[in-house]
Amino acid sequence: MPAPVSAHQRLREHLHETRLLGSISSALYYDQNTVMPPAGAPWRGDQLALLAKQVHQRQSSAAYADLLAEAEAELDGASAFEAAHNLQLLRQELKRQQALDPDLVAAIVQAQSSGNALWQEARRQNDFASFAPALERLIQLRRQQASQLASAERVQRSPWEILAQPYEPDVTKAGLEALFAPLKARIPELIAGLADAPGARLTPGHPGPGPLSLEEPIPGARSQLAQNQHVLNESALIPEDLQDSLCNELLASWGYDANRAQRSRSAHPFSCTLGPDDFRITTRVVPGQPFSAFLATAHEWGHSLYEQGLPRKGDHYFPWPLGEATSMGVHESQSLFWECRVARGEAFAGRWYPRFRAGLAADPWGKPHRFWRALNPLRPGLIRVEADELSYCLHIVLRYELELALIEGDLPVADLPGEWNGRMQALLGLELPSDSEGCLQDIHWAEGLFGYFPSYALGHLMSAQLAEAMERQLGPIEQRVAEADEASLRAWLAERVWPLGRCVNGEDLVRQVCGEPLSAAPFLRYLEAKVERLQAL
Amino acid sequence: MPAPVSAHQRLREHLHETRLLGSISSALYYDQNTVMPPAGAPWRGDQLALLAKQVHQRQSSAAYADLLAEAEAELDGASAFEAAHNLQLLRQELKRQQALDPDLVAAIVQAQSSGNALWQEARRQNDFASFAPALERLIQLRRQQASQLASAERVQRSPWEILAQPYEPDVTKAGLEALFAPLKARIPELIAGLADAPGARLTPGHPGPGPLSLEEPIPGARSQLAQNQHVLNESALIPEDLQDSLCNELLASWGYDANRAQRSRSAHPFSCTLGPDDFRITTRVVPGQPFSAFLATAHEWGHSLYEQGLPRKGDHYFPWPLGEATSMGVHESQSLFWECRVARGEAFAGRWYPRFRAGLAADPWGKPHRFWRALNPLRPGLIRVEADELSYCLHIVLRYELELALIEGDLPVADLPGEWNGRMQALLGLELPSDSEGCLQDIHWAEGLFGYFPSYALGHLMSAQLAEAMERQLGPIEQRVAEADEASLRAWLAERVWPLGRCVNGEDLVRQVCGEPLSAAPFLRYLEAKVERLQAL
Repeated sequence: MPAPVSAHQRLREHLHETRLLGSISSALYYDQNTVMPPAGAPWRGDQLALLAKQVHQRQSSAAYADLLAEAEAELDGASAFEAAHNLQLLRQELKRQQALDPDLVAAIVQAQSSGNALWQEARRQNDFASFAPALERLIQLRRQQASQLASAERVQRSPWEILAQPYEPDVTKAGLEALFAPLKARIPELIAGLADAPGARLTPGHPGPGPLSLEEPIPGARSQLAQNQHVLNESALIPEDLQDSLCNELLASWGYDANRAQRSRSAHPFSCTLGPDDFRITTRVVPGQPFSAFLATAHEWGHSLYEQGLPRKGDHYFPWPLGEATSMGVHESQSLFWECRVARGEAFAGRWYPRFRAGLAADPWGKPHRFWRALNPLRPGLIRVEADELSYCLHIVLRYELELALIEGDLPVADLPGEWNGRMQALLGLELPSDSEGCLQDIHWAEGLFGYFPSYALGHLMSAQLAEAMERQLGPIEQRVAEADEASLRAWLAERVWPLGRCVNGEDLVRQVCGEPLSAAPFLRYLEAKVERLQAL
Repeated sequence: MPAPVSAHQRLREHLHETRLLGSISSALYYDQNTVMPPAGAPWRGDQLALLAKQVHQRQSSAAYADLLAEAEAELDGASAFEAAHNLQLLRQELKRQQALDPDLVAAIVQAQSSGNALWQEARRQNDFASFAPALERLIQLRRQQASQLASAERVQRSPWEILAQPYEPDVTKAGLEALFAPLKARIPELIAGLADAPGARLTPGHPGPGPLSLEEPIPGARSQLAQNQHVLNESALIPEDLQDSLCNELLASWGYDANRAQRSRSAHPFSCTLGPDDFRITTRVVPGQPFSAFLATAHEWGHSLYEQGLPRKGDHYFPWPLGEATSMGVHESQSLFWECRVARGEAFAGRWYPRFRAGLAADPWGKPHRFWRALNPLRPGLIRVEADELSYCLHIVLRYELELALIEGDLPVADLPGEWNGRMQALLGLELPSDSEGCLQDIHWAEGLFGYFPSYALGHLMSAQLAEAMERQLGPIEQRVAEADEASLRAWLAERVWPLGRCVNGEDLVRQVCGEPLSAAPFLRYLEAKVERLQAL
C-alpha cells in the first residue's frame, strides 16, 4: 500500500498546477507582445480568458478551500515556520476571493474591457468627456469591491488602501503621505535650482544646444530636434545594430545566461518569468532616443535578476507564495537600481563611453562627462513614462492624490482634467496642451487600477535606501562600477534582498536589510548629489 | 426566459474550448522551438503535459460522450449535411478513445519518452543494440493498441492500417502497394540513367566540380566541400542577410500577410497554426546549403497556405472536424507543390536567378540554367530528410516495408539493421557506414510512430496529380510562373483543394479534384520530364 499523501503534498500539487496555468498565460502574453501577428488577437484573448477562468476556479473552489483547511489542520509545532507562513498567505488570498461577489468580478472585467477601448479612442481624440462615464463606472465598481473586501482584511483599511494591497501589501495612506511630503517639498526646489543654471535645464519647446537635448521626452519634439543643428541626424546617432550589440554586451557583463534567459523585441519593454528557469525580457529601439534600448535593457534585466533570485529550493517555494515577489515597489527598486544607480551613474558612463563611441563614425559627445550628461537628461515633461529621475516621483504624487480624491474624496470625474492641469502647473510649472498628454496619458485608470501608482515612487525610494545600505558594507557603488565589478553588487542583492520572497512586505524588507525604516531621505540625498555633480560639470 | 440552448450549440462551445487548449499547446511549442532558453524545457514539458491531459479529458469524458449523443439525437432531415458529417467524425474519434485501455495509453506515453531518450543516445553512439529493447517494447504496445482499436473501425483493417489511420484516413496496404510498385520499378532506372550521364550524377564522397555539388546532402561532407576549389567559400556563398531578405521577398510574392502570419527562426523548419487568424512558419539558415532556407520557406509556406485556406466560416468549421486538414499526405502535397513544382522549377529559377546574383559579389552560377541545376541536386544519399526529389520516395518505400514486417510480419528487431542495409544497397546502391545513418536516422519509430512515413510519399504523388489537373485547366504551370502569376495557382488551390477540409480523405480528394483515382503515373511523368530536361542542359 502506498504511503498516504499528506494534505501539504496535495496542496503543493494543486499550487504547482495553478502555477503552470499562470505561467502558460505569461508565455502567451510574451508571444503576443513579441511575434504574434495582429489578427491573432481575438483568439489569443479567448485563450487567455480560458486560462484566467481556470486559474480563478482553482484559487476559489470549495475543493481548494477544503484542501487548504486540511493542510492548516496538519500544522503542528514541528512544522517549519515557512510552511505556516505560506498557508497564512494562501488563506489571506482565499479570504479575499471568497469575500467577492462573482457578479461583481464579472462586471469589473467587463468594465475594464470597455474602459480600455473607450480610453484608447478618447486619448486619440483628446476627448475626456467620451471616457468619463466609463471611468465613473470603474470607480463605482472598485468602491464596491473595496467594500466587499473589507471583511477579509486583518486590520482596518480605507477603500483606497484595500485596492492597493495586491500591489503593495500593508501600504497605508499615512505611511505614503509621510514619505511623499519631503518629495513634494524638496524636488520642486531642485528643479528650480536647475532652471537657474544656464543651459542645464531646458523648457519644452526650446531644446538647447547641448547633448542633454538628445533625450527628448516631449511628444512632437522630433521635428524640433531636427532643427537643432548641434544634434546629429537621429537615425545615424546610434544605429540599431550597434544599440543591439551594446545591449547584448551589457547583459553579458551582468550575468545574462542564454541557457535560462532570452531577450526579444516588443513595442513596450517588459520582463516576465515563464518558468523556474525561463526568464524573458524585451526591449525596443526608439528613433530619436539613442539610450532608450540600452537603459530599458538595464531596467528590465533588473526586474529579471530579482525574479531569478527569488527562493526556489525546497518545499516552500516556486509554487508557494513565499517564492513570489513581495511587492511592485520592491520589484521596481531592483530595476531602478540597475538602471539609475548603475547604468546612469558617472563611473558607468566613463566605462561605456568608449564602447558607444567606437561604433560611431563621429563622436556626438566629445567628452565622457558629456556622454554622462546625455544619459541623465534632467528636464520636467508632461509624460510620466518619459520623465527624468528628478521629476518622476512628482508625477506619482499627483496621481496618488487624485485617485484618492476620486475613490475616497469628492472629486467629480468631470473635474479631473482641470484638477490635473492645475496640479501639473503647481508641481512642475508645465502648461498642458491637451488631456491626451494629461489625465488620459496612462492606461491604469482606464482599467480601473487604483492603488498601483505609488509603487513606482516607492521603488525609487527603496532603491536609494538599499543602495546606501549596500555602500555602508561594500564602499561606494561608483567605485565598484569603475572597477567593472558589478558582480559584487549583484551578489549583495542576491544574498540579502532576493531570497526574502514574500517573507516580508516592502517596508519590512527595507527595515530588515537597511536596519532603519523606509524613508525619503536617501533618495533625496541621491538626487541632490546628482544634481550638484551635473551642475558642476 | 432565455431560449433553450441546443445540444449542437453546447457541443460547439465544448469543441471551441478544446481547440483553444490545443492551440495553446501549439503556441508553447512554437515558443519552445524559436526562443525558449534551453533550461526552460522541464517546466515547458510540465505545461504541455497538463494541457494534453486536459484535452484528453475533454475528448473522452462521459459528459462529452453524453453531449455528443444529445447532438446526434437532435439531427433530423432539416439538418445540414455538414452537421451530420461533423458528428460522424467526432463519433469515430470518440469510439477510438473509448476502445483504448487508459493503462495502455499511459504505457505508450511512457515508452515513447524512454524510447526517444534511448534513441538519441543510440544514434549518437551508433549503437542499435542499446535501443533495440525500447523498440521492441514500442512495437508490442502498438500491436496491443491496434488490437484494442480494431473494434472501433467501421471496416476490417490490419494492425498496421489501424495505426496509420490518424495520419491517412482509410489508407490500405493494398492501395499503397499498388501506388509504390511503379515507383520501385521506375525510379531506380531513372537514377541509373543519371549515373550514366557524365557529371550529372555524383556519388557520395566524390563531389564534382559543378554547381550541383553546392547542395551537399551527406553529413560530414562539409570538409570535402572545402577541398573543392571550384566552390566558393560556403559562408560567403549566400550571406545570411541575403537569404533572409530573399525569403521575405518570396513570401511577399506568395501572399504573406504580416497581419495574419509570422516567420521566425528555429533549429528545424516547421509550420503551425495558433488560431483561426494566426499562422506561423519557421526556417533556418544552414551553413553550406545556400538554398535550404529559401526552399524550406517555400515548403512551410505551402503547409501554411493550406491551413489558411481550410473552411472557417459558419457553424461547421474552425472548432469542428470539417475545418481541419484531412491527412498528412494532403498537407505534404501542398508544401511540396510550392517547393518542388514551383520553386524548384526552371521558370522560377529563371526569374529568381538575377535576385540571388544581385546580392552577391561574385556569381557562383554564371548562367540561369546552372542556377536551376543548383536548385535541383539529383543524387541519392543515405539521409531521408536530405534526399532529392528523385530518390525520396524510395526512402519511404523502404521504411514502409520494414515497419510492416516489424508490426505484422516476422522481422525480429535484432535483424532490422541488416535488413535496412541490404535494402538500401538494393534500392539506391548505397553502402551504409553506420546505423546512425541507417535505421537510427529518423525519430518516428523511436516514438512508436508506425504508419506515418507513407504520407510523405503520398504527398509527392498527390502534388504531381493535382498539378496535372491544374495544368489541364490553367495551362502549363511553368508558363504561369514565368509570368510571375503564382496568384492564379494559389487561387486554383484555394477554390478546389483547401476548402474541402475533412469532407473527403486524401484519395477521395484526388478523385474529386482530378476526376481520376490517385496514381503514381503523374509523379513518374514529372520526374522523367525533369531528369530529361536536366540531362539535356
